[in-house]
Amino acid sequence: MSSHNTTTHPGLAPLFETPYYAVIFTSQRNSVALGYAETADRMVTLAAQQPGYLGVESTRGADGLGITVSYWRSLQDIAAWRREGQHQTARDQGRADWYEHYALRIAKVERNYGWDHLDGSADPLLRAGS
Amino acid sequence: MSSHNTTTHPGLAPLFETPYYAVIFTSQRNSVALGYAETADRMVTLAAQQPGYLGVESTRGADGLGITVSYWRSLQDIAAWRREGQHQTARDQGRADWYEHYALRIAKVERNYGWDHLDGSADPLLRAGS
Repeated sequence: MSSHNTTTHPGLAPLFETPYYAVIFTSQRNSVALGYAETADRMVTLAAQQPGYLGVESTRGADGLGITVSYWRSLQDIAAWRREGQHQTARDQGRADWYEHYALRIAKVERNYGWDHLDGSADPLLRAGS
Repeated sequence: MSSHNTTTHPGLAPLFETPYYAVIFTSQRNSVALGYAETADRMVTLAAQQPGYLGVESTRGADGLGITVSYWRSLQDIAAWRREGQHQTARDQGRADWYEHYALRIAKVERNYGWDHLDGSADPLLRAGS
């Protein structure tokens, strides 16, 4: 599966031929910092080594609300990553130590568009004719 | 379409019967503050009044990278919101004034799960048997 992007944009996952899959993980952190950043960084690195991984977008506000969207080639790839041992351990620790609550949604990406200010002002959705 | 949530969680959109749709908007803000917060707040309020609107999750980090995921009943509802006049104007202004680059993905939510620390430590994906 090849990326449609000709340039990379920090923080944004590439665009791909659809369909592919998104895992939308929205979480409220508590105030426990111990071990969190190290584990989160380790999981980002480990996820990127899994079959079918396409990219990730992640941010968290000062209020502790975070959204991480990871992109995958197939539902099978998502299921395999969920079974990965270190990932299972990290999820268990997240529930025990770091999260107040979260929601997780698995979604099939049907369309994707990108825009960069260097491209000009046109709406990419209009350019795509949809 | 009724929500599956028995309690609400600040910052998280409710869970719903699948399928429904997500619009994943990931954007890098520039440093221009003038008018942005007011317009963003106005669009959140206006979106919530549109047919088919289900909820929104939104956060932005100190580096200016933001992710907003809005949830909708159908692709038709998403298209109608995109045609809404004030929303069109706000998008044009966003491209002209406030964004460095963004990606927008439209995705069909096929599964959703939630967890709250008051519920205990079990993985909701395991509880769901999937």
